[in-house]
Amino acid sequence: MAKSLEVEHPNKAFGWAARDTSGVLSPFNFSRRATGEKDVTFKVLYCGICHSDLHMVKNEWGMSTYPLIPGHEIVGVVTEVGSRVQKFKVGDKVGVGCMVGACHSCDNCISHLENYCTKMILTYGVKYYDGTTTYGGYSDTMVTDEHFVIRIPDNLPLDAGAPLLCARITVYSPLRFYGLDKPGMHVGVVGLGGLGHVAVKFAKAIGVKVTVISTSPNKKKEALDHLGADSFLVSKDQDQIQAAQGTLDGIIDTVSAQHPLMPPLGLLKTQGKLVMVGAPEKPLELPVFPLLMGKHACYI
Amino acid sequence: MAKSLEVEHPNKAFGWAARDTSGVLSPFNFSRRATGEKDVTFKVLYCGICHSDLHMVKNEWGMSTYPLIPGHEIVGVVTEVGSRVQKFKVGDKVGVGCMVGACHSCDNCISHLENYCTKMILTYGVKYYDGTTTYGGYSDTMVTDEHFVIRIPDNLPLDAGAPLLCARITVYSPLRFYGLDKPGMHVGVVGLGGLGHVAVKFAKAIGVKVTVISTSPNKKKEALDHLGADSFLVSKDQDQIQAAQGTLDGIIDTVSAQHPLMPPLGLLKTQGKLVMVGAPEKPLELPVFPLLMGKHACYI
Repeated sequence: MAKSLEVEHPNKAFGWAARDTSGVLSPFNFSRRATGEKDVTFKVLYCGICHSDLHMVKNEWGMSTYPLIPGHEIVGVVTEVGSRVQKFKVGDKVGVGCMVGACHSCDNCISHLENYCTKMILTYGVKYYDGTTTYGGYSDTMVTDEHFVIRIPDNLPLDAGAPLLCARITVYSPLRFYGLDKPGMHVGVVGLGGLGHVAVKFAKAIGVKVTVISTSPNKKKEALDHLGADSFLVSKDQDQIQAAQGTLDGIIDTVSAQHPLMPPLGLLKTQGKLVMVGAPEKPLELPVFPLLMGKHACYI
Repeated sequence: MAKSLEVEHPNKAFGWAARDTSGVLSPFNFSRRATGEKDVTFKVLYCGICHSDLHMVKNEWGMSTYPLIPGHEIVGVVTEVGSRVQKFKVGDKVGVGCMVGACHSCDNCISHLENYCTKMILTYGVKYYDGTTTYGGYSDTMVTDEHFVIRIPDNLPLDAGAPLLCARITVYSPLRFYGLDKPGMHVGVVGLGGLGHVAVKFAKAIGVKVTVISTSPNKKKEALDHLGADSFLVSKDQDQIQAAQGTLDGIIDTVSAQHPLMPPLGLLKTQGKLVMVGAPEKPLELPVFPLLMGKHACYI
């Protein structure tokens, strides 16, 4: 007979778990594995709430199993390290993002693209190599292979640092990977939610011109005054959209619901890149001809 | 009162025109402009039949006007050149593809990407700069700005050369532009029609490994024996598709009807490129997460 989740592993743990698709989280006693020789164990102090947590809690991607403890923007302080851990010591400030394991031997892993490893282990809701389920950061403690643990700099407040573990890399990576970081470039950010506001800040910090595109006119002030965007387009304003046709080198589209890819595609210059980082539960309609002529749609 | 199409211009011409969406072409007397100082006039000897001609004849893209003379894979022999024409003389073998005009001053034109010029003039069915309609190569004569006239080498038979003016550039360009031309690369070609068979031949000539993906098992012999592809996948054969997951550096998808982008996306390696060169009349469904993770969908 299988052990109960409370005694499956030696270390008692507590979290907030979804038990069904209702969206309700409730207290949950479970356990974490003992600190392995390459593991870092840390006390969780803050955890971001990502839209994908909401998708997973409600099983909107059809891959959730219950009980499910969400959370993949996790920061805290190290309480124990394994005998072969080299990068961390007790007391260090650390974080864990969306993944806690990979095969380390496939082409993707060798290319430092562990996030595309077909044997990649998500931070929660999947089977780990030992056959037990992974549980996320809406909990009091984490035990993670040091390869997937990140150091949090002393000058970064832990509460502000947590969301960067998913939202940051999701928007920073495409700006760099798709070469949208060159002086004089003009980048669009679609949607000004959790990802979008971070995208604006990174793009401005990198030094490119930024236009925010949103369905909500009332986000203009936040975009321009608070986040420092250079301009703002209301996506339903045909005149504004028409005037901006063919002006952007790339777009980071952060919208996490099914949505039309026009107007974004029309705003791109020739060979411009539309990078979709949201994860809608339904396919998007890709207008192919002539709207997509010379444009690139990419998914990070 | 507007002049009739037969006397609109000084030079009498004859072609085959669509008069409505029925798909029927019928004899059509019209006229061509006098040879301008930068124009090349040539007798049409051959003209390819492209799937986009069929779309246009039947107004499947909603942009056709009638009468419409299709044809944009046009070859023939020069009969007259304008006083400022530098590249051609009477008797030269020449060709014209899908476009006959561009603004020559926008960013696209300056970058030699006239095909993306917003003022680009298609070879047929649109208004030319003089306000008259352009008519294509299903006709006996052409008058074209030399900038859009291509020399046909003496060792290339004219009949075989005609389809290269659209089909060739459509599949050759993405192989080069997207870097799918490196030794050791493995490229897929979806669909083995007019574009697909040219794509296979070019990819093999460039020196990359080629897999043809088709819904029709009976195209296997043609793909392997006649065109020289290295392997063949039946897109509905789940076992074949599963075994080939993550093996291709890029895919040239030539299918001109609405079709699922899986399995093609699944066949790509991480950061592989799916280049769509077909022009379906309806949008494609773009599966975004997790199927498109790390993949690129592009439209040439």
